[in-house]
Amino acid sequence: MNQSFDIAVVGATGTVGETLVQLLQEREFPVANLHVLASSESAGSSVPFRGKNVRVREVDEFDFTKAKLVFFAAGPAVTLSYVAKAHAAGCSVIDLSGALPSDQAPQVVPECNAQILAGLEKPIQISSPSPSATALAVVLGPLLELLELQRVSVTACLAVSAQGREAVSELARQTTALLNMHPLETSFFDRQMAFNLLAQVGKPDAQGHVPLEKRLVKELREVLGLPSLKISVTCIQAPVFFGDSYSVSLQLAAPVDLPAVTAALEAGAGIELVDADDYPTAVGDAVGQDVVYVGRVRHGIDDTCELNLWLTSDNVRKGAALNAVQLAELLIKDLL
Amino acid sequence: MNQSFDIAVVGATGTVGETLVQLLQEREFPVANLHVLASSESAGSSVPFRGKNVRVREVDEFDFTKAKLVFFAAGPAVTLSYVAKAHAAGCSVIDLSGALPSDQAPQVVPECNAQILAGLEKPIQISSPSPSATALAVVLGPLLELLELQRVSVTACLAVSAQGREAVSELARQTTALLNMHPLETSFFDRQMAFNLLAQVGKPDAQGHVPLEKRLVKELREVLGLPSLKISVTCIQAPVFFGDSYSVSLQLAAPVDLPAVTAALEAGAGIELVDADDYPTAVGDAVGQDVVYVGRVRHGIDDTCELNLWLTSDNVRKGAALNAVQLAELLIKDLL
Ligand SMILES: NC(=O)c1ccc[n+]([C@@H]2O[C@H](COP(=O)([O-])OP(=O)(O)OC[C@H]3O[C@@H](n4cnc5c(N)ncnc54)[C@H](OP(=O)(O)O)[C@@H]3O)[C@@H](O)[C@H]2O)c1
Ligand SMILES: NC(=O)c1ccc[n+]([C@@H]2O[C@H](COP(=O)([O-])OP(=O)(O)OC[C@H]3O[C@@H](n4cnc5c(N)ncnc54)[C@H](OP(=O)(O)O)[C@@H]3O)[C@@H](O)[C@H]2O)c1
Repeated sequence: MNQSFDIAVVGATGTVGETLVQLLQEREFPVANLHVLASSESAGSSVPFRGKNVRVREVDEFDFTKAKLVFFAAGPAVTLSYVAKAHAAGCSVIDLSGALPSDQAPQVVPECNAQILAGLEKPIQISSPSPSATALAVVLGPLLELLELQRVSVTACLAVSAQGREAVSELARQTTALLNMHPLETSFFDRQMAFNLLAQVGKPDAQGHVPLEKRLVKELREVLGLPSLKISVTCIQAPVFFGDSYSVSLQLAAPVDLPAVTAALEAGAGIELVDADDYPTAVGDAVGQDVVYVGRVRHGIDDTCELNLWLTSDNVRKGAALNAVQLAELLIKDLL
Repeated sequence: MNQSFDIAVVGATGTVGETLVQLLQEREFPVANLHVLASSESAGSSVPFRGKNVRVREVDEFDFTKAKLVFFAAGPAVTLSYVAKAHAAGCSVIDLSGALPSDQAPQVVPECNAQILAGLEKPIQISSPSPSATALAVVLGPLLELLELQRVSVTACLAVSAQGREAVSELARQTTALLNMHPLETSFFDRQMAFNLLAQVGKPDAQGHVPLEKRLVKELREVLGLPSLKISVTCIQAPVFFGDSYSVSLQLAAPVDLPAVTAALEAGAGIELVDADDYPTAVGDAVGQDVVYVGRVRHGIDDTCELNLWLTSDNVRKGAALNAVQLAELLIKDLL
């Protein structure tokens, strides 16, 4: 296959967009022309790609007929403003912002439900799920045949980078201030994030659920193809720069055999299982890696119908940029 | 009641012991003589109490007939070395180290199962449960009548102070080193604790469970009087100095009415319920306070048979020193 493609990345100067451009290079994606787009603030700056500096342009002025495939990595409002224009220009779209409804742009994790791509109309529109749904789908996918899964309980401990560049700077600033006995100033977070855990990531609805939690439930059900799976979820913000961690407890209708579980995890694509007496961490293992790490595989205390796992994953790579590039690799086979 | 009592605190120079001595003063516990005990390392130093400096003595040289009540707050090995001597000398004992089996020293949280004290033989021996079991018991206790509880799933995010003074220093040292771009040195923790989450607090058994997780299950069942309650638990170490946080999901046999839950929590002793759109944090709320804070009270997504809660509690106060002093306050009524 010697064909190459004109690609646009909206939000190319952001946490996810930067990594996405790097991955297009690292994975030798067949890019003909690369268009890196952002707001007027970054227009004129540049992004490195294959040894050259590519000039950043304003998305508002972009002629979408110049691209065959567009990645939207600049927040839901930006996706909603430009997706129709891109579609009308014949672009296929991979959205990373969670802005599009699933009937318009289904959620896809290549390791789990790539088969649905073949049934979509062209130009293709798909969504890369939230980092939490992606990491859980990668790990639970290969276990579904083994388990009579009744419920997934998860506490997702999210890195501040999940909220973009400003959140990263604020954790660094707050930590430095506290260690130097300076007064704490908050701007991005509404309270002390350094040396603390925040139990609510985003604004809750009348029922007390935050958007990230609702997305996780909806997207995980969709990607696993289990629309009525019971999922208990709490998303918390941890004082960690990069890498999400998940405490996961699965309830099963019948006892599960642990050696079968570890064999399935070892064989699963995109998974790294660590040794039984060790465990993975965000900083020590996941960050900068393409796989989802799994450890602490164990039954419940007195309960062989319970399976517990600890996952860590790079929220910016597999959680966003890598998953999107993997989707693009599938699309160029014959769907663009 | 004008009687006062001779008290000994073993481990009085530690994180828990220091707070315990402070609380005896703050709560005007009727102390006649206070004996503050530690290892040979601290012997000769002193601990402030009621405006005086009390000299620290070596526990090994202490004559236990001088005390009516002994708090053991110096680790399980120290409890096991001296408890028989204390008992033989006629002392009542409150153990904070988790060293003693429940048939010898039952686990007690005053808000939940104080009634068992009356049935114990003198001199009394009781245990103050781990901070996790204590916080969960305080909050679940008043809900039991309302709920047909089938399972508790909890991810306990523990502060480093739960592991004592050395762990606190190491988090500070690691954070400073990283912010100054110095190489990371680990000694207390076996890997990077700053800006990271560790999924395994202690050494796992052959089944993968760590002692803290087994204690939580055993102690919570005992204090709630529900010996076969299903409890899914993961204890993780967070880069937080003081204050534990708990992500809790309860499964129920029947739908629960949220207003009834909030009413029960508001009425419960030792609980502070925060407003529905707010949530408590370790640093902002729990630290230095006597109550367990509760927030994010909500059903599951699509599931009224699920009740979710977020708790934060001062691990050193209600998790240890305060609970022990409250137990002592009950004992002096007529049990010493
Ligand atoms: N961070 C993660 O872990 C993660 C994971 C999965 C999905 N996501 C999603 O990916 C998206 C980007 O997140 P991020 O973390 O990369 O955010 P970020 O670091 O804050 O970057 C935001 C990007 O969007 C661009 N942008 C902002 N407003 C714009 C506008 N009006 N028009 C055009 N471009 C605009 C910014 O360009 P300027 O430089 O011009 O401001 C920048 O390139 C969000 O929807 C987020 O939910 C993030
Ligand atoms: N920290 C918590 O949140 C927490 C909560 C609940 C229960 N606990 C339990 O309470 C106990 C103390 O914990 P901590 O956090 O206070 O520990 P810590 O800060 O490390 O203090 C340890 C204390 O024990 C004393 N000690 C150590 N070895 C001794 C020995 N051989 N003989 C006599 N005294 C000795 C130390 O005295 P020196 O000054 O002489 O070394 C010091 O007073 C542990 O069992 C812990 O599991 C702790």
